[in-house]
Amino acid sequence: MRYITGGIALGAALVLGALATTAQAAAAPAQPARTGGLYAPTALVLTVGQGAGRADATVQRAVTLSCTPGGAGSHPNPKAACAQLRAVSGEFSEVTGAPDGRLCTKEWNPLVVTADGVWQGRRVSYTHTFANPCELTGGQGAVFEF
Amino acid sequence: MRYITGGIALGAALVLGALATTAQAAAAPAQPARTGGLYAPTALVLTVGQGAGRADATVQRAVTLSCTPGGAGSHPNPKAACAQLRAVSGEFSEVTGAPDGRLCTKEWNPLVVTADGVWQGRRVSYTHTFANPCELTGGQGAVFEF
Repeated sequence: MRYITGGIALGAALVLGALATTAQAAAAPAQPARTGGLYAPTALVLTVGQGAGRADATVQRAVTLSCTPGGAGSHPNPKAACAQLRAVSGEFSEVTGAPDGRLCTKEWNPLVVTADGVWQGRRVSYTHTFANPCELTGGQGAVFEF
Repeated sequence: MRYITGGIALGAALVLGALATTAQAAAAPAQPARTGGLYAPTALVLTVGQGAGRADATVQRAVTLSCTPGGAGSHPNPKAACAQLRAVSGEFSEVTGAPDGRLCTKEWNPLVVTADGVWQGRRVSYTHTFANPCELTGGQGAVFEF
């Protein structure tokens, strides 16, 4: 008797579970970009400014970048930028590293790049200062090329 | 029922927004956002999250919004959002004000909205907490409706 009661309870739980799943699926049919469960949202603003730090730099250019699921935004090459960021799991320090053997002059004419927003559901606020424009364009890839 | 209808409408808006973005990207492949001297750049990330503050809230949705010169981004209604922001000179506190006479229950189920990026060349970092979802959808307009 105990086993039968247990079986009925289990059966009822399974049916209720199935109904709940169905109801949930039916309630939210057409919202691929609401990213509730499908994708963690990724939406970024990238800037390049003249100056040594985020607070005092004058923003010269600013673009948007979305990476869910492909690449979009006002960034001139969103697909390449998203691919590069995915390859480093959104670690912006990996895309502002040392130039690939490029020789730059050493003058101090600083540029600040920033990234703010959300990378796969995680808030991002990143700042990096390059000593001069040559350092910025020294082979770090697509992310800050705009 | 009202929520389901709203969800479908939102889904349609998102699809239309994505189509518009694609069409725009196809129509203007050559870096419309460089605009060095023409316009001060505007590029924003807007988020809605569950929680009481920016630091601890879980980001549920995040969209990009560009307002130079028109409206673009993954926001479902970028033109309306940009128009609303222009009308208040980018003062986000003006678009998260008190609901227009709407009656909301008073339970504490907080949502946090954030705006980060650049408004016409000026850095923006804005956070506002709504006591519950009703307060968020209480008539503040298009900016945080996504």
